Amino acid sequence: MSASIQSSGGVITCRAAVAWGPGQPLVLEEVEVAPPKSMEIRVKVVCTSLCRSDVTQWQSQAQPDLFPRIFGHEASGIVEGIGDGVTEFEIGDHVLTVFIGECGRCTHCRSSKSNMCQNLGLERRGLMHSDQMTRFRVKGRPAYHYCAVSSFSEYIVVHSGCAVKINPTVRMDRACLLSCGVAAGIGAAWNVADISKESTIVIFGLGTVGLSVAQAAKIRGASRIIGVDINPEKFEKGKTFGVTEYINPDECREPVQQGWGVTVTLGVPKTKPEVSTHYAFLLTGRTLKGSLFGGWKPKSDLPSLVDKYSNGEIKLDELVTHEIPFERINDAFDLMREGSCLRCVIHMQKEL
Amino acid sequence: MSASIQSSGGVITCRAAVAWGPGQPLVLEEVEVAPPKSMEIRVKVVCTSLCRSDVTQWQSQAQPDLFPRIFGHEASGIVEGIGDGVTEFEIGDHVLTVFIGECGRCTHCRSSKSNMCQNLGLERRGLMHSDQMTRFRVKGRPAYHYCAVSSFSEYIVVHSGCAVKINPTVRMDRACLLSCGVAAGIGAAWNVADISKESTIVIFGLGTVGLSVAQAAKIRGASRIIGVDINPEKFEKGKTFGVTEYINPDECREPVQQGWGVTVTLGVPKTKPEVSTHYAFLLTGRTLKGSLFGGWKPKSDLPSLVDKYSNGEIKLDELVTHEIPFERINDAFDLMREGSCLRCVIHMQKEL
Repeated sequence: MSASIQSSGGVITCRAAVAWGPGQPLVLEEVEVAPPKSMEIRVKVVCTSLCRSDVTQWQSQAQPDLFPRIFGHEASGIVEGIGDGVTEFEIGDHVLTVFIGECGRCTHCRSSKSNMCQNLGLERRGLMHSDQMTRFRVKGRPAYHYCAVSSFSEYIVVHSGCAVKINPTVRMDRACLLSCGVAAGIGAAWNVADISKESTIVIFGLGTVGLSVAQAAKIRGASRIIGVDINPEKFEKGKTFGVTEYINPDECREPVQQGWGVTVTLGVPKTKPEVSTHYAFLLTGRTLKGSLFGGWKPKSDLPSLVDKYSNGEIKLDELVTHEIPFERINDAFDLMREGSCLRCVIHMQKEL
Repeated sequence: MSASIQSSGGVITCRAAVAWGPGQPLVLEEVEVAPPKSMEIRVKVVCTSLCRSDVTQWQSQAQPDLFPRIFGHEASGIVEGIGDGVTEFEIGDHVLTVFIGECGRCTHCRSSKSNMCQNLGLERRGLMHSDQMTRFRVKGRPAYHYCAVSSFSEYIVVHSGCAVKINPTVRMDRACLLSCGVAAGIGAAWNVADISKESTIVIFGLGTVGLSVAQAAKIRGASRIIGVDINPEKFEKGKTFGVTEYINPDECREPVQQGWGVTVTLGVPKTKPEVSTHYAFLLTGRTLKGSLFGGWKPKSDLPSLVDKYSNGEIKLDELVTHEIPFERINDAFDLMREGSCLRCVIHMQKEL
């Protein structure tokens, strides 16, 4: 089975990795991908990397009705089709997909203080923003989206506000990492925490996002970058990204917290989503803030991050621990759950 | 009974309003005020205004051992005596007292990100920072301090790092308000929330601090300044300070919260000091931060605030709802508890 484009303007039949139920191994199925509607584009996915939130959501029992479903959101691709009204893209453009878009018109997009686009925000119902429908069909029924991206498919339809044109000379099997996790980490450090020279930084969790925070902190000149992780193997990798000290909470017999400063949350906890603190902790100079996609406005900001990779200013290659062909996508899920993987890049078209 | 200075370098016998137990009416007693020790100054208090935290702490049953105690911390005065090593002040200087000092040398004083001086921070044990002793005696026993200021006394000893020299032409019966509450509100708006032009601001509680936030927000060009208070009388006063809309929570039948942004806490809750929130609220662009004394470094920043009052850039007069002589200090406590008072200025020396 391989991609067979029936019509560049019509429905495409291609392969997608379909989850038929929560936690069930993905199955490569033939799916139909509708043509892009108004203000949408259709993209041929080149590479997609697996992000922890794909795994978390796939395992979750919270939305059992949203299956069959096509996960994936961290991806690079090439514009294949263009819907009515789209002037920003041309066929052949290289793009990154993004899980929160930038309409450019809403209050948030027009504010320098937010990247929470009100029209193309985090989509949680498995549908497209514009018409609350899906663009996929599998075995005669609709297949739900994930984050309005669903990059575990050879072709996808996304809103034009959820794709970012990038420099076509940049490696697409690396740039895809900037579509979510790496950008989230770098942005949390630069935009949200606004790390300054000679600061002390503590990073809880040395996965792709945490290591991205580390490299961003190092670039800003932080003098101590303390990595906290229960997996000691992460520390060696951490050094590459600037981590200067390592704490394994499993080896701490007493609390080590002290000091003041800014705490930035930038992941999604699997349990206990309540955050509580004593009022006095805030009064005496502490700040608690959150960050989705590192505060970046994707269209405005991502192209320059891609260029920074291209210029050698930020590292991506060192985060790619595995590369596999699309057929082996379930291996990526296994690797992520085993904790032995930072980023696994899935090549949609290439034989590896 | 009136102040009788026995020796400008020795012990002073003068009047102070002494609390003999939690919630017990203050009694004007003859007290002995020790000479200033190294790096301290002795100050003749001219005016002290009553702040809500004086009342809260006086009512609190939490530290019954810290009595007899002399409360008060929001004050203006004139330097009367100078301890060894103090080069910054001369006798006759006009000063404001401050409840958190600025040593100028610690990590926090040297950081642009904090005003939480590690040497002269909020004092909670009723003693002086330097030697953990008191400078007052009443009826043959030590009297405890409050915030290492204790301005309900005609003379007080404070650390030189807890006093700020101000322009001597400025009215001392007004400048004292900048010693705590008004500065806390203005700083929360300017330094901590960093309110920008055309923002929408919500202020919970329209007392002196809340109204100070309002005037600071107005100066920054906020377009909507929404005041929330259960006392509708506060709204009329609020208009003077820039409040554009009023919400009385007692009249709301359903929750009115919406939106995103920055929440700054800057008071001390009497009950339930835990703050809890759902993680997702932070992730989607909300920040929770605290502020003590509005983020101001007192020595570095207060003189310019005093000048802003002097130039008519910030209002203080409109916050003074009552003025009384020292003898009637208990009336100030009654007025504050009744909610009919913003600031009551207590004149230590003057007949009113």
